[in-house]
Amino acid sequence: MDRYRALFDAHLARWTAALPPGGLYTPMAYLLGLPAKRVRPSLVLMACELFGGRAEDALDQALAIELFHNFTLMHDDIMDGSPLRRGRPTVHVKWDVDMAILSGDALFVKAYQAMGIRPDVLAIFNRHALEVCEGQELDMAFEQRADVPLADYREMIRLKTAVLLSCALQVGACIAGADEDQRRRIGAFGEHLGLAFQLRDDLLDAFGDPGQVGKQRGGDLRAGKKTFLLIRGLERAAEEGSDVLRAELAKPAGQRDVQRMLEVLEALGVRREAEAEVARHEREAAEALDAIAVPEARKAALRALHAQLTGRVH
Amino acid sequence: MDRYRALFDAHLARWTAALPPGGLYTPMAYLLGLPAKRVRPSLVLMACELFGGRAEDALDQALAIELFHNFTLMHDDIMDGSPLRRGRPTVHVKWDVDMAILSGDALFVKAYQAMGIRPDVLAIFNRHALEVCEGQELDMAFEQRADVPLADYREMIRLKTAVLLSCALQVGACIAGADEDQRRRIGAFGEHLGLAFQLRDDLLDAFGDPGQVGKQRGGDLRAGKKTFLLIRGLERAAEEGSDVLRAELAKPAGQRDVQRMLEVLEALGVRREAEAEVARHEREAAEALDAIAVPEARKAALRALHAQLTGRVH
Repeated sequence: MDRYRALFDAHLARWTAALPPGGLYTPMAYLLGLPAKRVRPSLVLMACELFGGRAEDALDQALAIELFHNFTLMHDDIMDGSPLRRGRPTVHVKWDVDMAILSGDALFVKAYQAMGIRPDVLAIFNRHALEVCEGQELDMAFEQRADVPLADYREMIRLKTAVLLSCALQVGACIAGADEDQRRRIGAFGEHLGLAFQLRDDLLDAFGDPGQVGKQRGGDLRAGKKTFLLIRGLERAAEEGSDVLRAELAKPAGQRDVQRMLEVLEALGVRREAEAEVARHEREAAEALDAIAVPEARKAALRALHAQLTGRVH
Repeated sequence: MDRYRALFDAHLARWTAALPPGGLYTPMAYLLGLPAKRVRPSLVLMACELFGGRAEDALDQALAIELFHNFTLMHDDIMDGSPLRRGRPTVHVKWDVDMAILSGDALFVKAYQAMGIRPDVLAIFNRHALEVCEGQELDMAFEQRADVPLADYREMIRLKTAVLLSCALQVGACIAGADEDQRRRIGAFGEHLGLAFQLRDDLLDAFGDPGQVGKQRGGDLRAGKKTFLLIRGLERAAEEGSDVLRAELAKPAGQRDVQRMLEVLEALGVRREAEAEVARHEREAAEALDAIAVPEARKAALRALHAQLTGRVH
């Protein structure tokens, strides 16, 4: 990962340095300059090399994916009312909502500019960009709904998180000239990895080691956030005739007994179900990678990424 | 114009009917369904025919321009706090700000989808889309500034209004296969027409017949809006040592003597300057059209549009 990230960061630094001063461009440079793991652009470069391309030839598309990702962050932070992003003030807090809307819009145009004019790449990008918007819409709609079916939650995290990883990999594959079958496989790898990542996040929030995760245990449960655990927990509780979760959710957020909610989720088998779900997606991701017809040595970087995400405890 | 509008409206109706139900798509369909003159998409079709293309072959790009225009309206209405658009509630009022941000973002993706994958068309669209964002940013920044130089105001209306007309015409020209010289000329026609249009709007607001313009005379002056008239008026007043305008602006908006401000602008020669400016841009637009090397008969539609805008009193 380090090599891809270094390659990408140098490219991003050149792009940032070439931005016009002031106006819309200062918030862009600020957000892009916050420390970040650059997972998505690295995926573009990794997929390009996987299929025999040169990472250098996919740098503009890697940039486009990262610009698009940051555009969604700038707008999502407004909608979610988030004061902080990566430990620093969000754009709509540091400037104002109007600037965050407009600088985000301009950043989206810059993403398209960087993406270039390959028909296959643009078709993939357009489709997935729309899905990311649809995912955010579902996420917002869920906050207004008392009951969210598990299938809808899965679709939301697929759209909001997983499809952009899939898109990044498919774009990299396109640049390397991979055929449609191979592109579908690397896309499936990304989608399953993204789903596993998000579900593992839900699990770590509830059952992880707070010392390693870096935040208070059960924050999502305390907030009543509809994650896999709570949605499936409420389903299972209804089947078993248990009303502990509903009773806790009826309390104000500050008074919820998170420890008790965790015990109920454990007793109802929801933790095990979630773990099985994570394992299934990680397995399907690995199978998709297995099925890609390139020399095994070229898969090393993506296998390492898979192993890193599979084993993570924070 | 009627033929182009009918052709376009049928295409738009097909697009709207094919949208998925609910979610992000309802606000899009609502905004696109409000009555509108469809000037920008008609320009795409007219420019395509001007250079010997078939209007039918530019319908998708006309759609893309109109979708982009409506995306900017959806977001600008949030920033400007506008409750009404075309006499109906704006999207952020009818739904909420979050939905207007997100549905707008998705509409922007749909614009790119409709625009297709021609390199020349995309290059033009990307460049002008960014300029439109820059124009809105200047417009917002001007509200915070006591003094706006006239050159900055001209650049703002060029970016915010004129470049999208120019873009629409250039895109239509591309579809018809016009060469770069011809494209530059039709682009200049659009830009001058757009500048004349906006400056005439400023003039009509102040000196038009309220019965024909359909709003109270001098609304911009009453609000202290920095248009050509007020900016140039303050410059000329400073040269002449007159402090009437500054004194009126120092009052609360409701207590300003608009009639007196109009008399001062007239006396300072600012009205005549603005009229000369409009006439200059209208002449330059006509000259750009003259210089385009196609049979004169093909220019009839654009000449009629030019005459219609030149003679308008509301």
